[in-house]
Amino acid sequence: MSKIEVGILGATGSVGQKFIQLLDNHPYFKVTEVAASDRSAGKKYSEAVNWFLASPIPSDVAGLTVQTCEPKLKSHLIFSALDANVAGEIETAFAMNGYVVVSNSKNHRMDKEVPLLIPEVNPDHLELIKLQPFGKGCIVTNPNCSTIGMVIALKPLADKFGLDAVNVVTMQALSGAGYPGVSGLDCIDNVIPFIGGEEPKLESEPLKILGTFTGREVKNYDMKISAQTNRVAVIDGHTEAVQVNLKTKPSKEDIIKVWKEFKSIPQELNLPFAPLNPIYYFTEDKYPQPRLHRDIDKGMAVCIGRLRECNLFDYKFIVLSHNTVRGAAGGAILCAELMKAKNYL
Amino acid sequence: MSKIEVGILGATGSVGQKFIQLLDNHPYFKVTEVAASDRSAGKKYSEAVNWFLASPIPSDVAGLTVQTCEPKLKSHLIFSALDANVAGEIETAFAMNGYVVVSNSKNHRMDKEVPLLIPEVNPDHLELIKLQPFGKGCIVTNPNCSTIGMVIALKPLADKFGLDAVNVVTMQALSGAGYPGVSGLDCIDNVIPFIGGEEPKLESEPLKILGTFTGREVKNYDMKISAQTNRVAVIDGHTEAVQVNLKTKPSKEDIIKVWKEFKSIPQELNLPFAPLNPIYYFTEDKYPQPRLHRDIDKGMAVCIGRLRECNLFDYKFIVLSHNTVRGAAGGAILCAELMKAKNYL
Amino acid sequence: MSKIEVGILGATGSVGQKFIQLLDNHPYFKVTEVAASDRSAGKKYSEAVNWFLASPIPSDVAGLTVQTCEPKLKSHLIFSALDANVAGEIETAFAMNGYVVVSNSKNHRMDKEVPLLIPEVNPDHLELIKLQPFGKGCIVTNPNCSTIGMVIALKPLADKFGLDAVNVVTMQALSGAGYPGVSGLDCIDNVIPFIGGEEPKLESEPLKILGTFTGREVKNYDMKISAQTNRVAVIDGHTEAVQVNLKTKPSKEDIIKVWKEFKSIPQELNLPFAPLNPIYYFTEDKYPQPRLHRDIDKGMAVCIGRLRECNLFDYKFIVLSHNTVRGAAGGAILCAELMKAKNYL
Amino acid sequence: MSKIEVGILGATGSVGQKFIQLLDNHPYFKVTEVAASDRSAGKKYSEAVNWFLASPIPSDVAGLTVQTCEPKLKSHLIFSALDANVAGEIETAFAMNGYVVVSNSKNHRMDKEVPLLIPEVNPDHLELIKLQPFGKGCIVTNPNCSTIGMVIALKPLADKFGLDAVNVVTMQALSGAGYPGVSGLDCIDNVIPFIGGEEPKLESEPLKILGTFTGREVKNYDMKISAQTNRVAVIDGHTEAVQVNLKTKPSKEDIIKVWKEFKSIPQELNLPFAPLNPIYYFTEDKYPQPRLHRDIDKGMAVCIGRLRECNLFDYKFIVLSHNTVRGAAGGAILCAELMKAKNYL
Repeated sequence: MSKIEVGILGATGSVGQKFIQLLDNHPYFKVTEVAASDRSAGKKYSEAVNWFLASPIPSDVAGLTVQTCEPKLKSHLIFSALDANVAGEIETAFAMNGYVVVSNSKNHRMDKEVPLLIPEVNPDHLELIKLQPFGKGCIVTNPNCSTIGMVIALKPLADKFGLDAVNVVTMQALSGAGYPGVSGLDCIDNVIPFIGGEEPKLESEPLKILGTFTGREVKNYDMKISAQTNRVAVIDGHTEAVQVNLKTKPSKEDIIKVWKEFKSIPQELNLPFAPLNPIYYFTEDKYPQPRLHRDIDKGMAVCIGRLRECNLFDYKFIVLSHNTVRGAAGGAILCAELMKAKNYL
Repeated sequence: MSKIEVGILGATGSVGQKFIQLLDNHPYFKVTEVAASDRSAGKKYSEAVNWFLASPIPSDVAGLTVQTCEPKLKSHLIFSALDANVAGEIETAFAMNGYVVVSNSKNHRMDKEVPLLIPEVNPDHLELIKLQPFGKGCIVTNPNCSTIGMVIALKPLADKFGLDAVNVVTMQALSGAGYPGVSGLDCIDNVIPFIGGEEPKLESEPLKILGTFTGREVKNYDMKISAQTNRVAVIDGHTEAVQVNLKTKPSKEDIIKVWKEFKSIPQELNLPFAPLNPIYYFTEDKYPQPRLHRDIDKGMAVCIGRLRECNLFDYKFIVLSHNTVRGAAGGAILCAELMKAKNYL
Repeated sequence: MSKIEVGILGATGSVGQKFIQLLDNHPYFKVTEVAASDRSAGKKYSEAVNWFLASPIPSDVAGLTVQTCEPKLKSHLIFSALDANVAGEIETAFAMNGYVVVSNSKNHRMDKEVPLLIPEVNPDHLELIKLQPFGKGCIVTNPNCSTIGMVIALKPLADKFGLDAVNVVTMQALSGAGYPGVSGLDCIDNVIPFIGGEEPKLESEPLKILGTFTGREVKNYDMKISAQTNRVAVIDGHTEAVQVNLKTKPSKEDIIKVWKEFKSIPQELNLPFAPLNPIYYFTEDKYPQPRLHRDIDKGMAVCIGRLRECNLFDYKFIVLSHNTVRGAAGGAILCAELMKAKNYL
Repeated sequence: MSKIEVGILGATGSVGQKFIQLLDNHPYFKVTEVAASDRSAGKKYSEAVNWFLASPIPSDVAGLTVQTCEPKLKSHLIFSALDANVAGEIETAFAMNGYVVVSNSKNHRMDKEVPLLIPEVNPDHLELIKLQPFGKGCIVTNPNCSTIGMVIALKPLADKFGLDAVNVVTMQALSGAGYPGVSGLDCIDNVIPFIGGEEPKLESEPLKILGTFTGREVKNYDMKISAQTNRVAVIDGHTEAVQVNLKTKPSKEDIIKVWKEFKSIPQELNLPFAPLNPIYYFTEDKYPQPRLHRDIDKGMAVCIGRLRECNLFDYKFIVLSHNTVRGAAGGAILCAELMKAKNYL
């Protein structure tokens, strides 16, 4: 089987690099085009990029010439890792020109006809594509990095017990801010109790993702969310303290059971980036921890621990997920894998 | 005026060292006796201690001979920095022998007749001493390091608007675990989402501290608290994400006003360790931060920021306070200063 | 082919854990016995160990019962990760009882008949075993973690150009101190300019490793070494600033060429833990860096960069190697692989 | 006595902020003018600056209007904290217009008639000013942050024993790179073995500083220096591993004695920023450490430890100094204090 050729928009940035790293030797996809800002266009990728990942630049990408972000690429499938200040218009232009755009940028996430997709959670939302006004082109988006882990933890609870309220306080990794991102002077021996624009995303995106697709639209899930987001001195892996009120209160064992048993379409389809289990539950009080557990199951699993009753909510627990793999490039690749399996490519 | 001589129990530990550092050149008190475990007893203090603070050992303490923790000290006033596994009995023994014990240990905090004292919050609880069965001796305790900052922030809200519920998620400094405490391998590039025994303290101590002294007992404040405690790679300074429900919901401006105007007995009495203002409110979204603000007003002030409305509670905000100064040795010294001013010494 | 059964001494410590992690699914060896102190003996391994590695305990080891460190194991091949305060006698006892002991402990390293082995550097020193007084048993040692990386970098220089003097200043990772090892309070926002006992090892071990085996003894390499060792806030990976005087001064290009071309017996024999290339040379000024490059080639390669002329020596450069893989458990496993290939097992 | 009014060039940058912080309540000087790039000019200082120091902006500076860096300021004394890409021309322009410029920038450091001044080391170099072609104006420079600590440690050795060679490997703090400077992603769990342009400064500046002023020029000190510079995850405080060859080899005790006894002109004149002792020697192997000792004597002292004989040089030892106080703004202020005392203002 010949691989599907893909182009990366914003290929020199931190998420762009992660796309290229994760797509190396991918069984379905092959990066054949890279595009970035005019400043980089025309250069060899290896010269245009300030590559900062531990593995070397894949050799077949290193020699590609960086192109501009115009809808003139040969690839039909496009991963977008563009900055939010330009992503909106460029992605629309690509879709209007018939490309399939899978985007990690925030711009189109809340658009009515655009799926905000977590393949284990709302694979049926992909059908929204048919309502998009782009002809053969379309846009599919990946949620915010702090949203994805939490929503995967919430999905089995929503299905089995129903959710009324979610309270979350995050301790987020530096890589979520891109590169160079947070100054070393701001993060060593410190906590920054603020991440610009993050809390509104965490308070709104889950409602759409957990929402019901009626055939014509996604009706938001009906619950309240409050989010407080903090930056800590961790390289990768967002840790989140989550509290929930459920419509029917199960036992602790019931909750752990639904988490452990949770499998979904990506697991059934055995998609390449699908974790064996979307959720790992730890019984040790001190786990999960970002340095120890962020890479579990290729960085695509969500780790949960410390489930316990709460004086103010029904339950509280800790969620950990890898923000640049499951929470960004890896999550978007899984979206594209699902689209291929469902014949959207 | 001659200074009051004081003895330090647990003088070689991390809190013991902090007492000695902070009491250097204190206007009221002078450390003339140090006591520790049998292993250290008999040695010169400078040889028994693994001093790890930035300032040198005060010269008049360095040469003291370490004594055992038996109630045979000459000082009348005793600061206890003992480990919880021995503090209970030793402190009782001292009190029964007529000593005034001001303790940072947890053992007697919840005892009915023992004040759990924050001088700005519940100075009247000192009268509990009269109910103690120790004759001329007594025990006064300082709350847990993660409790103190939060309760100072809550006090003006409780007084003006009434509290119904408090939800708190902490990001606590390494120094709270003593020395050596947390391994470097556990805290670099990591978060530990668990601190043994910490959450029950945070969920119970504030109820006693904010409680009402009836003349015969302290009646607990009636509200619910939920706490989640995490360890992060910060040297000093606990950061806490707090949410509150109030009996009457004020405007944001009203809350900031009561915080800024909050002064109490230690400020009126102009006690040496009293901060000029117990509370500093920051208007910048990214503040307060532990590295930048933990030392404000000698490390005795509580820093607050990011007050905003909440989808699930009335308000949410960030509290920061120095855990080994305001939250431990400095707080206990302020207790003793208040006791002196009120003629309890 | 059935696998060789191995026992691990000191199995619950940090190096013991690393042995167990790295030997999981090893093509030659299978861990069937674990031994540790009397405190752990009799317990299930998973209950005796405070496992702190990112991957889970291999399932076939988790259920083993911890044995005492007496020479009553069934395995013929023993990896020793014992503490130096007990390793000497225990390892001798095992060798005297016919076991093949491959040790990461320092005790026997400088014994006359004990090979101090880096398979790429001095594989012929294995013949020292024949001079050992242990009958069918023997002891082979792995050098200190800060020695190994540097000596691999020096070996091709010694062979081609001859060495007169080596000056080294290290910035060593926390994992080199074991677990819990260095307190978080000592390493965050700090450097510790001292590692007990480390400098003498770095100044003596290379002389033996680079020495000549005459058939009866190893004659030390004749050069002077000065070492200064520092601890920095890095999880894994020792970075070393090295300066050398050579007997004949080559060009910079010549040196890089001999590094890049360096291959040795483990590469010829295609041993499982042998890196494809023992040495990687980086041309970017800012490389190598521990977080980015310690894991190259399974953590078994040595990374070098910044080769340049020096005002006081002939050349200076940076060496990086993974201290718990190449510098400890991985290096010892490679020793055992070489011994198997050379029929010493 | 009325204070001397001073203007700060580059007032919004990291060194500029440090000047303003350190000059708050200075007995001689008062900041009355702040100047910065055109982007900031015209704004209130508190609005133009991204203040990141722990203490608040001094209130009398917060309200100043930022001016452009043109020689139209009213102050006669100018502290320059300009970026190197603009400092050269601007400082020359100020000097030519009669201002006294004390600069922390590198541009004019090696100019023949410009003193490269450490007040304890080469106060007589100030007379170079008389040879400057600027009429009543002049330029005085402060050495590089990694140079200053080392040269203060070397000065008494040069005077008593004579220096032949100096080898230095640094572990430098993040604040040396300005703000935002080094990315958190590059410094957490990492070492960067390269600092652009730093090694040539460390290899050349000491020769001028330790040189002899003949009345007409400074003749460089005759010795060889080799420097290797590394960036580590420390907020403030450069740690340096130094090796020296001396013309006459003293005992270890002799060296410690000359360090301890070292005092110079700033101590004699009792200048406000002069440390009581320029050098503190630590006898504990594990000291000095940046977090514990960088602030000793107002951050103006140099800490030394671990003096020991060396296999390749006469001696080796560790030097620590605060890079933004002694090594930048504080050092420059001490230069100006000396100039005032010597009637150069």
